[in-house]
Amino acid sequence: MQRIANLLAVQNDQVLLLQKPRRGWYVAPGGKMESGESIYEAAVREFHEETNVTPLDVHLKGVYTMVIKNGEQVIDEWMLYTFVARGVKGTPFKETREGKLAWHPVGELQTLPMAKGDRTNLLFAAHQKGTQYGTFEYTEDFELISEHIQSSIE
Amino acid sequence: MQRIANLLAVQNDQVLLLQKPRRGWYVAPGGKMESGESIYEAAVREFHEETNVTPLDVHLKGVYTMVIKNGEQVIDEWMLYTFVARGVKGTPFKETREGKLAWHPVGELQTLPMAKGDRTNLLFAAHQKGTQYGTFEYTEDFELISEHIQSSIE
Repeated sequence: MQRIANLLAVQNDQVLLLQKPRRGWYVAPGGKMESGESIYEAAVREFHEETNVTPLDVHLKGVYTMVIKNGEQVIDEWMLYTFVARGVKGTPFKETREGKLAWHPVGELQTLPMAKGDRTNLLFAAHQKGTQYGTFEYTEDFELISEHIQSSIE
Repeated sequence: MQRIANLLAVQNDQVLLLQKPRRGWYVAPGGKMESGESIYEAAVREFHEETNVTPLDVHLKGVYTMVIKNGEQVIDEWMLYTFVARGVKGTPFKETREGKLAWHPVGELQTLPMAKGDRTNLLFAAHQKGTQYGTFEYTEDFELISEHIQSSIE
């Protein structure tokens, strides 16, 4: 089962997002965990590899069960770990083979094109206290079928 | 890849632990996530199934990458999600086919026999603020080879 870690960097009321070429959708930089990594190590490493910057004050905001379905059949299932960083050190790449990187006003998380579940995750990471949990079911074409969310505050 | 969720219930300076028959080691009640569950749902369900009580004020405290090694070879790898609950509703089972359930003074987390990594997790869950991340490497006989820990506070 895949484990994906991504990270939303927030600095001066802006967020660093990657625009993927295929659909033009925006994502928080991240990628696949490697064997033996912790989710924290994976999020920091993947973010640095994709952006060239070091995230500061990194904290886990969400753990999500991602399910791809074709009708009632589960096609794929993986775990997504979403972190936030309250600042970065360094200057991000402008473009990589993964897509275009840029800072956006945090308010644009409401409107930029992205997977529906990602908007839920990223708005929580940017604005809410505590930790979010949930399951997102998508079609193979990445249309959201359902989301079930829980959250807690320490 | 397996995903295991467990939960440490803390109430009146006591913790509810399960003593497993095989080695006599103590664990926080939990078990395997099912397809499509969130980690939160899995922790609450497994805890209730194993103890007969409902955990209150449930919050994620740690996410751990668990690796079983034989020499340099990785034999197995799974994810462990450790939650805390600040109280419970109901009266726990005394004994189940999983082992013996009992409340213990929270200080006994320091001394009760358990897997070394579990002590790290449970002491953090009981006493520390924030979220812990890390990787535990064990032998097939569940001797700890290494632990690498990170943590963060919101």
